[in-house]
Formats: sequence, C-alpha cells, structure tokens
Amino acid sequence: MPALAPSPKAYVPFVSVENMMQLIHRIGIETMLLEMTDAIEDDFRRWNAFDKTPRVASHSTDGVIELMPTSDGATYGFKYVNGHPKNTRDGLQTVTAFGLLADVATGYPVLITEMTLLTALRTAAASAMAARHLAPKNPSTLALIGNGAQAEFQVLAMKAVLGVTHVRLFDIDPLATSKTLKNLSDSGLHVIACSSAQSAVEGAQIITTCTADKQYATILTDNMVGAGVHINAIGGDCPGKTELHGDILLRADTFVEFEPQTRIEGEIQQMAADYPVTELWRVLDGKAQGRRDERQITLFDSVGFAVEDFSALRYVRAKLQDTGLFHNLDMIADPDDPRDLFGMYLRAK
Amino acid sequence: MPALAPSPKAYVPFVSVENMMQLIHRIGIETMLLEMTDAIEDDFRRWNAFDKTPRVASHSTDGVIELMPTSDGATYGFKYVNGHPKNTRDGLQTVTAFGLLADVATGYPVLITEMTLLTALRTAAASAMAARHLAPKNPSTLALIGNGAQAEFQVLAMKAVLGVTHVRLFDIDPLATSKTLKNLSDSGLHVIACSSAQSAVEGAQIITTCTADKQYATILTDNMVGAGVHINAIGGDCPGKTELHGDILLRADTFVEFEPQTRIEGEIQQMAADYPVTELWRVLDGKAQGRRDERQITLFDSVGFAVEDFSALRYVRAKLQDTGLFHNLDMIADPDDPRDLFGMYLRAK
Repeated sequence: MPALAPSPKAYVPFVSVENMMQLIHRIGIETMLLEMTDAIEDDFRRWNAFDKTPRVASHSTDGVIELMPTSDGATYGFKYVNGHPKNTRDGLQTVTAFGLLADVATGYPVLITEMTLLTALRTAAASAMAARHLAPKNPSTLALIGNGAQAEFQVLAMKAVLGVTHVRLFDIDPLATSKTLKNLSDSGLHVIACSSAQSAVEGAQIITTCTADKQYATILTDNMVGAGVHINAIGGDCPGKTELHGDILLRADTFVEFEPQTRIEGEIQQMAADYPVTELWRVLDGKAQGRRDERQITLFDSVGFAVEDFSALRYVRAKLQDTGLFHNLDMIADPDDPRDLFGMYLRAK
Repeated sequence: MPALAPSPKAYVPFVSVENMMQLIHRIGIETMLLEMTDAIEDDFRRWNAFDKTPRVASHSTDGVIELMPTSDGATYGFKYVNGHPKNTRDGLQTVTAFGLLADVATGYPVLITEMTLLTALRTAAASAMAARHLAPKNPSTLALIGNGAQAEFQVLAMKAVLGVTHVRLFDIDPLATSKTLKNLSDSGLHVIACSSAQSAVEGAQIITTCTADKQYATILTDNMVGAGVHINAIGGDCPGKTELHGDILLRADTFVEFEPQTRIEGEIQQMAADYPVTELWRVLDGKAQGRRDERQITLFDSVGFAVEDFSALRYVRAKLQDTGLFHNLDMIADPDDPRDLFGMYLRAK
C-alpha cells in the first residue's frame, strides 16, 4: 500500500543554497543587508527576552563544530557552524553553516536553511549595526583588512547602512584582494587595492579586520590606529585567535555582543579580566553611551552571537512566504494518531 | 546566467520520514533492531573515545527542546529533539527529532535524517542491549506499561534480541493498548491486554515502563516488583519526571548510561546523591558485573544518551549506500574558490 501524504505539520520549509542566492537577488543585497541590520537591532533592543545559552563547541585538531541556540520564549533557533582554517587549502569553506527555527509551544521545526551565505550577511549586518552607533558621523572610507569570503558582504553593508563611498583593501594574498576588487566592480563604490595594512588604513574612518588564519595574530598595531577611528574586529572569534595588538585595546572603548562569550573568544581575551567593556545592546537601548567624541577610538569586538542568527533566520522566514523559494522537507513523523507512530510505519509498506 | 550545479561537497544526503519507513521495511524491523543493538553496544564498549558533552536544553512552560551532540574524534553527531507532553492532545507527537552527522576533519555535514522513528528504534535497541546483560536468562515474558508511540518498538526489540515470546500490556488509556495489540497482531508474539499495571507484571521477567505524562509519577510500586525481575524504565527522562516508587530503587541494582546526566534526569533523581549506580558501558566492557544472581532486581534507568543516537545515525548512513533511500540537499555553499562566496552568489543571478 502506498504511503499516505504526510500532514502539513510534517513538512519543514527548507531553503537551499540556490534558493538563498535567488532570495538575495530577489530582495536586492543592499536592501537585504539594511533590513537585516534593522532586524538584528530590533532584537538587540529586547535583549533580556532571550535565553542566552552559551554555544556548545566540539574542538578537534583541525577546527571546531559549534551549536548556537537561543530562544525568545515564542521561537527557538539554533545554528550549526564549523570553523576549519585549513579547509581553504583543500578547496573547502572555512565556515559552513545551517540553521533552524522551531515553535517553542510545540517543539516542531518551522524552518531549516543553508546558513553559510546567511551568516556572511548577518555578520556584515551586525558590523553595520555597531558602526551605525559607534563610527564617526557620515563616514566615507572603509579599510578592509582580510579579503576572504566575508569581504564583499562587509563592504556592501557599510555602503547600504552608513553610506560609505570609498573602500581600501589589503590582504596578505593579492589574489584575495583582486577577487574582491572584481566582485565589487559594479557596486558603485571607489575601491582600491593597497600594498600594506598600514597603507589601507590611511584616511579611513572605519577599519574592519576580517582574517581567518590563526597564524597572523597582529593585523593592526597601535601606531596604525589614529584618533577618532572605529574598528570592527570580526576575525578574532575563538580562544587563541586575535587580530589586534593589545595596546590598541588600551586606547579604545570596547563594545561587545555578550560579555561572557567575548571574554573567552574575542580580542579582549588578551586583556585583564576587569578590562572594561560595554554590551552593545545597552547602547542601542539608550542605557549606555556609544561614541562620545570625535577623537575617541571605538572597537566592536565581534565574535558572532546566537541572537544575530535568530534575527537573520526570522527575517528569512518572513520573506519566504511571498517568494516560494523553498522546498518542503518531509522531516517530522506526524501520524494521524500521535501515539500510533508504529502504525504509520506499518501502513507505509 | 543560470547557476552552475553545486559541487558534490555541497550536497548532504537527507533521509525523509518516508525514506526512513522504506529503509526499515527494506532491512526488516527486527533485523534492524538487532543490528542497531549491536551497533550501540560496539560504541558503548569504546565509551572513552567519545566526547560526552552534556545535552543543551531550552525549557519552556510546555516542554523542552534539546540538542544532544557527541563526537568520537572522526565523526561528529547531534540530535535535535523536543519533549512536549501536551502535544498529544493537539494531535502532535510528544517527541520529534532529526539528526546530523559531520566529518570532524572538515566540519562538513555528511548526513541529515528524520529521527523521530530512528529515536524510537534506538531507544528500543538500547533497552534490549541493557536487558541482554541484565535480564534473567532466556526471558519469555515482557510487561509493557505505557502503550504509546514507543510501545511496539520496545516489544519487537525484546523479541529480536532476547527471544521474548509473551507480552502483557497496560495503559491507563485502553485505546492505547488496543492500538498496540492491533499493530502487533502479525508479530508472532502472544500479546494480551491487562486491566492494571499490577496484573501486567504477573509472571514477567522484564518490566518496561514507558509513559510520557508528568502527572502519573508512580507507575510501579514496591509490592509489584518480585525477585529476579529486570526493570527497564524509559519514561522518566527529565527533571521532575519519574515512574518508579523510590522503595524499588532501594531493592534494585541500578545501571545508567551516563551518570552525571541520569542524576539529573533519571529515576535516581529521587535518591540521595550517593545512591550507587553502575554505568552500563562498564558491564559491556567487562569492568563491572551485570546480573549477579537469579533473585537480584536489576534496573536500567534509561534517559537516552547522545552516543546511542550517534550509533543509530552511523548505522543508517552505512545502510544508505546500497538503498538510494535519500535525497541530496543543496545545503552547503561550496564555491570553486572557497574565498569567493560572493562571486558564487553574483554568478547565480
């Protein structure tokens, strides 16, 4: 006897890599980055509504596999993400990810999606959100050090959200920089390749460090950072991995996502335990001051936090309704009589 | 320009509910239960090879959503599982699940599968594995108290692995019992419905309690348990939820999966912190004694552990190669140049 069609509750909408790319094209990447920045900011403003479970990491010689769950009491979300710096040498992604949303009331999943692209978008959106509150007013120039898989997303978020017009690129591998230059050729931005990190930061109001490899641990030294700059450090994101010289942190005011996690994973792991930081949500919520004056150096010590993924997942779910850019996965066994799981199997013969 | 086909590494084999049901029919459910029992036992014998991260639970008023990860250093696995006792009243499953395997060396997922059916199978297999070492020799009769979604799987595992021939059913809801009777009508077993738990346990060498609702907290009282019996308690599996009267535990020798987890979630949460238990893997590995004599009461205080899911996932992955019972999910963004994630998106327009 053929199996009966599963009930609608058995289906979980799945967004493939192909459909995610189409969704970004459909919405427009700059619109999507801007809307996602707003979505993350909305969730950061209701920070205390979230169950902030620490991420669960499984470390190995070659990398780490992490599960990042959170919940706002109505919706539960988590991301599976790996970090394997050596992967690039084998033609693989350093970071791949997928994510899920579920209904807290029933525990049933309601969305599963690729999240490698979505993580690049949400990381860029989180950077732009921080810069919107911490960078000098009307910034024109971004220095981007590290021109890997995240580079163009970071650039376009700073354009879409802050109106940046000029970009100065540097990477220890010139091929990474030329790849980024080429990909941004139709972006309407003035983009140039620089021969050193020192050259790249000249005249920039925002400096973003975005490198993956553990072995280049001091991307920025103290003398490279002038007064009034905003630094967005997104590459130092696990224990033993940092990008900035500690002296920079002594001159900067540092903002973080979730202090207990950043103390372990962020740039501040090189500082004393009482090194002062401000959680970014407090700035967004008016509880703490962001940029104070035009000579202040601000640092967003970004490691990536589950709430950002949650916001991105909910954003994608909301956009899916109209586009049909998903498949229904028959992932949840849902017999007519919930106690008759075995009968459902028997009748599927 | 149409998108290029993703590389093979971008594809993750996905086993739907329908394909899982076909896989069970293809292998034969009793063969599958027996082979899965052996697979779990093989993994329990190499217990110290596993990274035994505690499960990560997100509790709400109506239930819990859990992530259960583990790794043996070569393969990583996790299960997403919810537990919502009220779901049954709304026509939903109390427990739904899906699972994933990934390659530790790269972090790339290699299998994603429905796991509601697979959890029922692995839970039954784990029960049979424990009973194989703890129950009296050549048991003929199983008493099964609680005849919900797990019932038939438990029965068939005890038949396949231990050769049980007679089954005595009881549930506070007679409809659950008649559902189970009907589903087992072609099983070759002598199955009867009993009017009480007390009646069900008469003459049974193995008593399995398998109830879901938090409000019926004492399924077995002390006077119902005779000498020489093996008890398999699988329904008490979260804080505040137990099935056995504490006096039974005072007479029994208790075996557990992973002591730190069972102290919080199992029957032994009602006992003092120094109540003695034996981790089951030590019995399988010859480090501790299982059943000692024919009058001993043995108790497997089962709460479900990530290693059991890992074994089940690896078993399914091995069986998939020949059957083709999976779909390839385009879940991992895998551009030709791993640093050119953005270029992959651009070219997909």
